[in-house]
Amino acid sequence: MSLDHTAKGVYPIAPTPFDADGRIDFDSIDKMTDFYRSVGSTGMTVLGVMGEAPKLDGAEAEAIATRFIKRAGDLPVIVGVSAPGFAAMRSLAHASMSAGAAGVMIAPPNTLRTDDQIAGYYRQAIEAIGSDIPWVIQDYPLNFSVVMTPGVIRRIVTENPSCVMVKHEDWPGLEKISTLRAWQADGSLRPISILCGNGGLFLDFETERGASGAMTGYAFPDMLVDVVRLTAEGQRDAAHDLFDAHLPLLRYEQQPAVGLAIRKFVMAKRGIIASDAQRKPAIGMSAAAKAEVNYLLRRLALKDPRAAGLGE
Amino acid sequence: MSLDHTAKGVYPIAPTPFDADGRIDFDSIDKMTDFYRSVGSTGMTVLGVMGEAPKLDGAEAEAIATRFIKRAGDLPVIVGVSAPGFAAMRSLAHASMSAGAAGVMIAPPNTLRTDDQIAGYYRQAIEAIGSDIPWVIQDYPLNFSVVMTPGVIRRIVTENPSCVMVKHEDWPGLEKISTLRAWQADGSLRPISILCGNGGLFLDFETERGASGAMTGYAFPDMLVDVVRLTAEGQRDAAHDLFDAHLPLLRYEQQPAVGLAIRKFVMAKRGIIASDAQRKPAIGMSAAAKAEVNYLLRRLALKDPRAAGLGE
Amino acid sequence: MSLDHTAKGVYPIAPTPFDADGRIDFDSIDKMTDFYRSVGSTGMTVLGVMGEAPKLDGAEAEAIATRFIKRAGDLPVIVGVSAPGFAAMRSLAHASMSAGAAGVMIAPPNTLRTDDQIAGYYRQAIEAIGSDIPWVIQDYPLNFSVVMTPGVIRRIVTENPSCVMVKHEDWPGLEKISTLRAWQADGSLRPISILCGNGGLFLDFETERGASGAMTGYAFPDMLVDVVRLTAEGQRDAAHDLFDAHLPLLRYEQQPAVGLAIRKFVMAKRGIIASDAQRKPAIGMSAAAKAEVNYLLRRLALKDPRAAGLGE
Amino acid sequence: MSLDHTAKGVYPIAPTPFDADGRIDFDSIDKMTDFYRSVGSTGMTVLGVMGEAPKLDGAEAEAIATRFIKRAGDLPVIVGVSAPGFAAMRSLAHASMSAGAAGVMIAPPNTLRTDDQIAGYYRQAIEAIGSDIPWVIQDYPLNFSVVMTPGVIRRIVTENPSCVMVKHEDWPGLEKISTLRAWQADGSLRPISILCGNGGLFLDFETERGASGAMTGYAFPDMLVDVVRLTAEGQRDAAHDLFDAHLPLLRYEQQPAVGLAIRKFVMAKRGIIASDAQRKPAIGMSAAAKAEVNYLLRRLALKDPRAAGLGE
Repeated sequence: MSLDHTAKGVYPIAPTPFDADGRIDFDSIDKMTDFYRSVGSTGMTVLGVMGEAPKLDGAEAEAIATRFIKRAGDLPVIVGVSAPGFAAMRSLAHASMSAGAAGVMIAPPNTLRTDDQIAGYYRQAIEAIGSDIPWVIQDYPLNFSVVMTPGVIRRIVTENPSCVMVKHEDWPGLEKISTLRAWQADGSLRPISILCGNGGLFLDFETERGASGAMTGYAFPDMLVDVVRLTAEGQRDAAHDLFDAHLPLLRYEQQPAVGLAIRKFVMAKRGIIASDAQRKPAIGMSAAAKAEVNYLLRRLALKDPRAAGLGE
Repeated sequence: MSLDHTAKGVYPIAPTPFDADGRIDFDSIDKMTDFYRSVGSTGMTVLGVMGEAPKLDGAEAEAIATRFIKRAGDLPVIVGVSAPGFAAMRSLAHASMSAGAAGVMIAPPNTLRTDDQIAGYYRQAIEAIGSDIPWVIQDYPLNFSVVMTPGVIRRIVTENPSCVMVKHEDWPGLEKISTLRAWQADGSLRPISILCGNGGLFLDFETERGASGAMTGYAFPDMLVDVVRLTAEGQRDAAHDLFDAHLPLLRYEQQPAVGLAIRKFVMAKRGIIASDAQRKPAIGMSAAAKAEVNYLLRRLALKDPRAAGLGE
Repeated sequence: MSLDHTAKGVYPIAPTPFDADGRIDFDSIDKMTDFYRSVGSTGMTVLGVMGEAPKLDGAEAEAIATRFIKRAGDLPVIVGVSAPGFAAMRSLAHASMSAGAAGVMIAPPNTLRTDDQIAGYYRQAIEAIGSDIPWVIQDYPLNFSVVMTPGVIRRIVTENPSCVMVKHEDWPGLEKISTLRAWQADGSLRPISILCGNGGLFLDFETERGASGAMTGYAFPDMLVDVVRLTAEGQRDAAHDLFDAHLPLLRYEQQPAVGLAIRKFVMAKRGIIASDAQRKPAIGMSAAAKAEVNYLLRRLALKDPRAAGLGE
Repeated sequence: MSLDHTAKGVYPIAPTPFDADGRIDFDSIDKMTDFYRSVGSTGMTVLGVMGEAPKLDGAEAEAIATRFIKRAGDLPVIVGVSAPGFAAMRSLAHASMSAGAAGVMIAPPNTLRTDDQIAGYYRQAIEAIGSDIPWVIQDYPLNFSVVMTPGVIRRIVTENPSCVMVKHEDWPGLEKISTLRAWQADGSLRPISILCGNGGLFLDFETERGASGAMTGYAFPDMLVDVVRLTAEGQRDAAHDLFDAHLPLLRYEQQPAVGLAIRKFVMAKRGIIASDAQRKPAIGMSAAAKAEVNYLLRRLALKDPRAAGLGE
């Protein structure tokens, strides 16, 4: 069940569930995993930025990854292993693969600037974790301040045969998808999977441009699954109708810093996790923000029954 | 017609119209100004970031500001005077006020970091242009990399009596509006106008949080005018219905770098300007992007007749 | 032997010694510790940026800190515990204090911008590690991109009684020392220790401005000890004569990125550590750079016998 | 007298002299120009960062450039034309060349990140000013936050035949010089001039690595001229002896932000300019800083008679 370039569909980015005292809530890990499977996810990604990975120590990270992987069964799990140094990255990558992960995801440290620095970093990272682990480039300039051109992505893919996927969350990013797919078509880039992030804000067009699907954490991953499916079936208008119904809430969730609080708030309402607690340091929601989300949920419920009753 | 803290409604950010050879299109300045007035704008802002101001030399900037101001008549015009140095800032501020501008807008240089640096910069800028010109703080961290807390905004407002408005485009930004208005209510901040940017992406809630209106450049400023009006009238659902109908296109336009091309493309389609040309350096739209915007316009036309026929 | 605000003299920043295969060289830890003590150091700092701390996993970091502390005996040891998250920071801080550390040092994450963010971060960090551990603010804008005004340092010191020292490596930084000491003199800041970094590039004047000494890693810490002592004795010209003799080499070592390679190269020549190896990712020295350092060492030997023979 | 790749020696970066009220001091321009010629400079550079260029409006910049050029006679003058937009850049470049400038210098805007962005910017800039003006790449990452690899410099040089020189002030930068000269030797890069900045902090080795000389603003350009000459004559030790004698002061001047105040303070003492005034916004020197510089000048006078009496 190793990850490869044919991966497609929706890999929800799983938040890490905590209780009010900051302890890991392993029962919610199971419940969330079951939920993701039940709505048609084709995989899962854990310990990403939105998984509060930097707030965990090494032992906790391994325990969380392992729990997700065990519960997921034959659903492939990608583990975020980004770390300030290669020793910690290697430890978590090996522990995760031993536990049955399908692959790992690596984000660039925010000090990288030039194309050579970026390509060199990934070469060294793969040398550190070993060239036999399938892995994902995380391209997220807004969060990491590292700008990757299509050319540097091609260079990384070419230099590292074990790279099988790009998590694409550049903004703007549509032309980047088109460029990568065009290179694949003309043979100058080998096939890779492209799953899109950014909270899904452009998923309606990303799939049309050739993306393989979504890897993001919007609180209604079931909607993401439907949009990817409808697009694949050629039902363009239906895909956009559903997407547009969710866009007001999705846009609200896709705010930097406060976004995770909103996501957990809605997921807890949906019963996917027991609590919306985050570990410190964390930004919470004001009463006004909660009221706004509830209003958006009530409006959404008029168009999508999955939101029924949530905003009451 | 001097700008003061009571300013409200919608001040569209006017793009600068060029012809295909990069020459300023003064006729389109007149046409655009007439359009803004006709749809109920309460003012205008020119020579902002989206006005391609840095691409103009000093004489061109003065000529453009003057043309807008003359045509606007009694509609107040705010002129962006941000510049790397105070000599150029003062020249443009004085020329604009002499021509009849209502006030000026000043963005911070992207090298500022600490609260003291930010407050110190604005103190020196006002000393340079003179303390008798009403002016606007532009708070736009995504673009300028300068992060202003509510506290530093209060400090700037307090230290500079001629400051009358904040152009608010922080992201996330809703709590900032609530904080500033709460301080105003408890007397710890004097009244200021708050007009919101970010392409209008959160305008539906910004007005509910206490913002005075919008100052942004979405290609349907008439929609912004309606949303501000409906909210003021207490027609919450109607305001959101209209806003949500535009959100798919608005979100598409609100992409960094390529956003201006999209905006001008739609404005040219609407006949507000003659051409969607930008001065170099500029990022244009691919054929795929144009097709996507046309699709969004056709979908919008189903809900708002102002888009009728534009996406054909 | 708990760290407090009376700390002064020289706390060398110890590099972490590795062998050619990237394994930790514990024997060199002992040898280096003995050397630091023998030349009159008043303490030591381990696991700083120059200690390649981010390249270690949690268990390695604890093992290294413990080894240094045990060997140091009654020489106070400060342990760098900066980490992306508070769980890892707390683990290392508690392990270090249990092993007998005198205190810990905390650098700000490079995403902080505003005064409130910086002060808030330190408040939460101290809440996480506990308010009973003496600790050091690391103020190093060139490396961390976080700019702390004297005012924000005062705020942090005031809000956190367990803060006892500033590691000062702002650039320029002389006026900051004068400001902090003036505030201390007028009673608006409680006494703190100020030890200076930046490779010692301004140590000659920093001590004259009121700094308590040095905390940096120049390969001749014995020179730093002498300069601090001579200044304290009022022998200004002698202090500058010695400092100036070392300045050409010190300046060469104080280059970003490549500086650690130079430092380890000279320390290995001096027999303080067994090898100049670094863990990956690392930047090494070209043959030309080694020849330049040797030339500087030969020139230095003409003025300071401690360099005799090193550049052959 | 057009600039070409054979340029060598020392091109001092001229500060712009002002009087206490911020007015341009044209008499000091003449005096400074005469001084630079009298000490053996082979050219001059005006309107650089240290020339307070961003504080001038367009007409002032042209007037200053013209005055320098006229007075310089057959001494080649390079004019800094960096600007936020190409309209202003072109205006100043054309005015300068018409007045007799030898070439222009262009720094990258601090928003550029990728190799493609950097190369693309220079291509568009040269298209804007015209491909017939000899020009200089300014590579100064510490100030502009733009990191150029040797590879991207080669690409710019190759794509733009009118590029004749790199102003090199990367830090560390010695290996970059070696790499560029090695490429030139193996034919993969056409010949270019490399003049070094950074206040001269590494000039002793930069010339040995193959740099053509210096372009920087240290207050004793006569020392820079001597060091370049001595190195060219093969008098290595003598070059280093002279350089090392100045290093304590040079290092003090080479502080960010406050450096220009120190430079003007010493130049005014030397009678090269009438006043050390800067235009606002400016950072001045404290009494303590002035006393420190005077002390350094007294120490320097013991080794270089050109400093005699200056520190009294």
